Amino acid sequence: MSPTPASDGPLLEFWFEFASTYSYLAAMRVEDAAEREGVALRFRPFLLGPLFREFGWNDSPFNVYPVKGRYMWRDMERRCARYGLPFARPEIFPQNGLAAARLACAAEAEPWLPAFVRAVYRANFAEGRDISVESTLEAALASAGADAGWLARSSDDAAKRRLRESTDEAARRGLFGAPSFLVGDELFWGDDRLEDALAFATRSRG
Amino acid sequence: MSPTPASDGPLLEFWFEFASTYSYLAAMRVEDAAEREGVALRFRPFLLGPLFREFGWNDSPFNVYPVKGRYMWRDMERRCARYGLPFARPEIFPQNGLAAARLACAAEAEPWLPAFVRAVYRANFAEGRDISVESTLEAALASAGADAGWLARSSDDAAKRRLRESTDEAARRGLFGAPSFLVGDELFWGDDRLEDALAFATRSRG
Repeated sequence: MSPTPASDGPLLEFWFEFASTYSYLAAMRVEDAAEREGVALRFRPFLLGPLFREFGWNDSPFNVYPVKGRYMWRDMERRCARYGLPFARPEIFPQNGLAAARLACAAEAEPWLPAFVRAVYRANFAEGRDISVESTLEAALASAGADAGWLARSSDDAAKRRLRESTDEAARRGLFGAPSFLVGDELFWGDDRLEDALAFATRSRG
Repeated sequence: MSPTPASDGPLLEFWFEFASTYSYLAAMRVEDAAEREGVALRFRPFLLGPLFREFGWNDSPFNVYPVKGRYMWRDMERRCARYGLPFARPEIFPQNGLAAARLACAAEAEPWLPAFVRAVYRANFAEGRDISVESTLEAALASAGADAGWLARSSDDAAKRRLRESTDEAARRGLFGAPSFLVGDELFWGDDRLEDALAFATRSRG
């Protein structure tokens, strides 16, 4: 994974929220998919909460609208089976992904970031673990081959500021859910638009 | 198109609302797709309004949440281009599809129903026509090879009752948007789940 685009190549921005179910699907496959298409990839952690509050939601829309939630959990089972991903519905939803998101902001330029992100998603949606606690993040860092010292970085002012700025940027650029993909100003929403986003990036290579 | 399943075959129910943008995408391709997979198909017109009101929405969610609306119109352009479908953003959204839906309920067993449905969707999303007026519905009937006399059936008590019952049934069976597909009790939401619904139907053939 290259966190910055080749100077002449298209860039796919992958915007994700650690509490988001469909972001799990995309996080587990986006690196391989971008590499296959020769598209540079940038991981963009952000928070959905502030965006949802603008809609008047103080919770996940899947909890605000239970009929949508029931469907989503079944759809996740099916999609995970289709992708060959493990899945176990977490007892708590949505989980608090704040510390994980700050850590991902701190590590935005690190080569192990995608592996860390996948480890956090597995902890949330396959392993029934609480992603807000230090031991889970430590294990995710370890599985990504990163130094445990990174954990402290999640509470740095710089990481906190970076996450706030990214969340503001998400709202400014028209995001309203996760996962989202941006190729320049072109927005694609949902795991099931990953292929479209990559095709758009490939065409924009010209 | 067979409106009823072969006795030993799976049935795909296609639930649609004439005002719904993504239902247009599905309506234009569902008949060919089901035929290709050997899956019997039933067209199920219903109204989204009563379901949305349960969510506290008195308008399309794409109007209630403008940031979602902006995205949807761009996504529709892209999706129509991908499918080779004509598209022109209607001046009025959502349109009033009540009469068209009642007519479709009256004609549920008619072989020309799918062609009529497609003609109404083209009028709405490609031709900039008002689908609530008689002349549009007359033209749609004519293009489907149906007798103009069917127009009067849209105001029959039987058609009105059938549409109310279908809308109640949609809510009871867990629908919350359109298009939706049902294979037995298995629900799939969105044009981009048509292929999954057909695959599920094919597997359930055993």
